[in-house]
Formats: sequence, structure tokens, C-alpha cells
Amino acid sequence: MKKFVNDPKQFVPEMLKGIALANPGLVKYVPEFNLIMRTDSPSSNRVSIIQGSGSGHEPAHVMIVGKGMLDGACPGDVFAAPPMDYVVGASKLLNSPKGILHIVNNYSGDRMAFEMANEMLDADGVVVKTLFVDDDVAVQNSTWTVGRRGVAGNFFVIKAVGAAAEKGASLDELLALGQRVNANTRSMGVALSGCTPPAKGQPIFTLAEDEIEMGVGIHGEPGRARKKLVTANEMVDEMLAAILSDKKPTTGDERAEPIAKSGDEVALMVNGLGGTPISELYLVYGHAHQQLEKQGIKIWRSYVGEYCTSLEMAGLSITLSRVDDELKKLYLSPVDVPVRVF
Amino acid sequence: MKKFVNDPKQFVPEMLKGIALANPGLVKYVPEFNLIMRTDSPSSNRVSIIQGSGSGHEPAHVMIVGKGMLDGACPGDVFAAPPMDYVVGASKLLNSPKGILHIVNNYSGDRMAFEMANEMLDADGVVVKTLFVDDDVAVQNSTWTVGRRGVAGNFFVIKAVGAAAEKGASLDELLALGQRVNANTRSMGVALSGCTPPAKGQPIFTLAEDEIEMGVGIHGEPGRARKKLVTANEMVDEMLAAILSDKKPTTGDERAEPIAKSGDEVALMVNGLGGTPISELYLVYGHAHQQLEKQGIKIWRSYVGEYCTSLEMAGLSITLSRVDDELKKLYLSPVDVPVRVF
Repeated sequence: MKKFVNDPKQFVPEMLKGIALANPGLVKYVPEFNLIMRTDSPSSNRVSIIQGSGSGHEPAHVMIVGKGMLDGACPGDVFAAPPMDYVVGASKLLNSPKGILHIVNNYSGDRMAFEMANEMLDADGVVVKTLFVDDDVAVQNSTWTVGRRGVAGNFFVIKAVGAAAEKGASLDELLALGQRVNANTRSMGVALSGCTPPAKGQPIFTLAEDEIEMGVGIHGEPGRARKKLVTANEMVDEMLAAILSDKKPTTGDERAEPIAKSGDEVALMVNGLGGTPISELYLVYGHAHQQLEKQGIKIWRSYVGEYCTSLEMAGLSITLSRVDDELKKLYLSPVDVPVRVF
Repeated sequence: MKKFVNDPKQFVPEMLKGIALANPGLVKYVPEFNLIMRTDSPSSNRVSIIQGSGSGHEPAHVMIVGKGMLDGACPGDVFAAPPMDYVVGASKLLNSPKGILHIVNNYSGDRMAFEMANEMLDADGVVVKTLFVDDDVAVQNSTWTVGRRGVAGNFFVIKAVGAAAEKGASLDELLALGQRVNANTRSMGVALSGCTPPAKGQPIFTLAEDEIEMGVGIHGEPGRARKKLVTANEMVDEMLAAILSDKKPTTGDERAEPIAKSGDEVALMVNGLGGTPISELYLVYGHAHQQLEKQGIKIWRSYVGEYCTSLEMAGLSITLSRVDDELKKLYLSPVDVPVRVF
């Protein structure tokens, strides 16, 4: 797999440096912790919001640091959780008197890094709360998780808490808000190809010319089934059926009911996994939109593009996030981040 | 090549329908002419701006129809010029008393379609002027062109004239402005892979595991050389050297001098061709930025992402566009289009 790379070991640092050079005044790069942070953070008027996770999912999350979203992101290497000391170091740099919110997608490695970091931060008197995201309905447990995986639905959580933090919400308010959005958000993905981490040099999995991985994870984890390639509409129908029939209560919410029913309003996201052109994403969006409308579900707003990717994987995910008046206002509030996806 | 597609013949119409469904109130779809148009066009206060070109380059141009950019885009099928009757039909629908500006990337098929359409429009008393874009420095003539190709630099032309049209500029003023931007804008691309049009089902060209096509066109046209894969930095250095040493006067400008020298300010675009993840684009951006600064060229603003693609081709292009105070103001003026790239 050919890539634009110099030394594979420098892939992440060189990318992070590029982000900072491209956005002077908005973000800066702290090499010591793989950290991209807002130049105006921390602020004593605002809870600081930090996301960790692995690299290889860009624009998540290093490219959505800025006004109205994250104060900082300190990723690990490609598909690897950030080391604990990155989390500690980034949190101390971004410590606010209003506290820190960590947002963690539910993977065992990330949980462990953040939990260990939080013990050290607690000991130093830094006030931190942690929000776990687990929007993926494909499988209950997975290669790197106990419980569900966190995928592109994470953007709705970050956008909501980022906007509320900007308005001065407290740490407890942000945690409750984020848990509510997570409970209202469900996703499922499908892969048409694998992808190749630069330092590995080999695909993490391969699919035959007529195969797809339905319910794939964003690190290539197996989904519900490896099956024969079907039409775009058939893939969409299967993903929507999985999302809409899902009744598992998710973190922070005890409702055991579908994410949306006739009369509800949702945001509809079609997220490219890295190697699928935006033309195909819009084709998929069109069918998903029409299928939801047929069921009486109203599409409030569309999100089509790349949010949470898997390097150059061909594939996409669909996310439904139920909205109400409070959330709509938060989603529409202004942002200033390197990648203009919201 | 697996794709999200139903019937390959319906690929373009289904994508266009998706764009319209995703952006109600902003754009609408007119199937008769493959047209995506602003819902508030034509306006008697504004010259209407229309771009044709083939599909397969999204977001160019159907996803940048809206306030501050295009009034309409009427693409042909994948990598095919729009039929003449699309151009005539779209132009009549969008006809404004202030006239129509056609923006045409310099490919023989597109030129022919627009020139024939303009004869018919002239006969019907529709006032049209045409702006040709030819920013690609890689080759002088190419598979589908006499003269240079128009590629991603086109976005600077569209952004400038779109902003000026919004402020009421006349057709002649827009033509002169667009020609000035085109003369100030130069690009070059490189491919790591070919791509597969849905209706063709086979790659338009193939590269070996250690090969690249330096100076590739956005339809896979040969560039300057097929050569061995080198590091990202070496590819960037070659593209920048080609852009900065280019002295050919371009359309509408008789200057035979480099696009930028020490002391000049430029916008720097790293445009993904469809299959290259944004992490790699930022890595490339970082090196390009530093190399230009070493030469005393000041980067005014960065543009990193997908602008003008070639389906799922792995590769990227670099564009330098020299700016001045008038252009900066136009580039920063607000837009409202489906894909938030500017």
C-alpha cells in the first residue's frame, strides 16, 4: 500500500505538525504529548474538553480542536490508545478551575489509559470527569472492547458538550448532556476494503473482490457478518434496520426503546471511512433519507462527509442522532476548527 | 472495484438526488439537465455563475452550489463533459438580467459543449461570457486538452467570482477577476493509484506497487513521468519546484514570471484526489508550508481536504494561489454550500 509518508514512525508527529502549521492562531502542537490544543485554552470560564483515542481516524479528533468543540486531543499512534502520560500531561496543561471533561470512545486500551491517568490527576487535585461513548450497534462486545464500540456518533457528543462548555456549563452539566446525546445516538458501519497502518505496512484484514464486512469496527474489527457484495440500497437497508431495531440501553440511559420512531426528528450522518468518495456517500444518503421518511422519521439535518475514518478504508457508517430543541441549538452554534465538518 | 452503487447508469442521478435531499432550502435538483441549482437563483441582482465539467470530481462542482459560490452545476456522466443541451437548459433556467458567467475547465469536450451551447444561447438573446481555467502546470497539452488542464485551482476562481457576484459585480468585472485569479493560480498532482468509473468497472490505468504518476490529470491522464515511489517530502519538493519554476503566461495574463517569489503571499491548497486520507494530506501540507517559508513565500491561508477529486484515486495535488488584499477579502466572505470546504 503506497502512502504519503516519510518515516512511518514519524507519521503521526508529522501530521500533527502539519495541522498546527495550517492553523496558526487557532491550535498549537505540543510534541511531548502528541497534543493538538487550542491556543486560547485553558480558560477559567470554560470546562476544558479533551479527547484521546488512537490516530488513523482523522479528522477525529485532532482536526476538531478549536472554538466550540475540543480544547485538546492527544492521540496515540495509529490505532493505539494514548499512553497514560500523554493524558496526564495534556490534562495538566489544559487544567481549568471549572474542571476537565475527558471524552473516551469505549475501547479497553483507551479506558485503561484514561482511568490510570485520572488516578494520578485526582491525586494532584485536578478535577476530571469522564464521558464514555459507545454508539455502535453492530456487536455487543468486540475485539478491543467490553461492551459496545464508540464510533462516528462521537461527533454529536463533542459538538453538543463543546457548544455548552462555550456557554459556561458546569462539568456535571456537560457530563449529563454528553450521556444524553450518547444515549440518543446509534451507528453502524460497513467495509468494502481493509486498510494499512503506515508502520505495519500490511492490511489489517482483507476482503475478496465480492465481499463486505457488515458492522465493521473502525480498527477493522469483525462486525456481524462477512457477506457477499450487494447494492448500495441493500447495504443501507440492513444498517438502518439494525440501528432502528436496536433496543439496548446505552451508557447513561436506561431507556430500552428504539432510537427513533415515527414523528421523531433525527440528524442523519453518512460518514466515509477514508477511501470512499463523497459521491458515493451522497448516493447512500439519498436512499437512507427516503427510507427514514417513509417510516415517518423526520430528518432535521444532514451530515455527509468524513468524520471518523479508518485510514484509507473503503466503507462508510450511518449514524442517527435524535434531536430536540436544546440539542438543535447546540448543533447549530458556531465552531472554528481546522476541518469544517459541522 | 467495490463501490456503493445500485445501477451504474444511475450513479450520477442518485448522487445528485442525495445532494438535494441533504440540503433542502439550499439547492434543488433538476433531473432533465443533471442540474444542481440554488433555490434562490436566478436573482436579478446577481450575475448567475454556472460550471459544467464531468462527474467523478466531487465535491467539484455540484457540492459547491450555493450562496457565495455557484448558482448551478450541470455535470455530465463520470469523466464526461455535459451534453450541450444540459448547458443550454441550465443557462435558460438560471438566466439573469445581469448575464451568465460560464466557468469551464480547459478540456476539449467541455469547451465544445459550452461553445455550441453559447451559440444557441446567443441566438436566443441570453448574455453569456465564458471563463476558462487552466491551472495545471504538469503538461502543456494532454490527452483531453489542447493547452493546459484545469484542476483544483478552479476553487479559487469560483470562490472569488462567487463572492464578487454576491456583491453585485458586473459580468465583465467577473470575467476579468476570474482571469486574474486563474493567472495567479498554479497546480500539480501526483497519483499513487488509478480509479474505476462505476459504469466502466475497470481501472482507467494501473500503477505497480512501487510506482507513481507524477503530474497526473484528474481523469488519469499521463503526467510528466511514471516513476518509482519516493518519500512524501520528495514528491512535495518535485511538485513545488514544478509550480514555482513555471513561467508560462496563463489565460488572461501575459506575465511570464513565476507564480510567487520571496515576499509574496499565497494560499496553499493540498487537495486529496479521493482515496488518500486527510492525515496524509496534512503531513504533506506541513512539509510544503515549511519549504515555501524557507523561500520567503508567506502562507496566508491553508486549504487542506478534498476539493477536486478523481473518484477513489489515491493521490493529491498542490495548488499555490497568489493573493492580495482584494482577493483575501473575497476568499474570506461567507458561503453556504453543501460541502463546507471554504
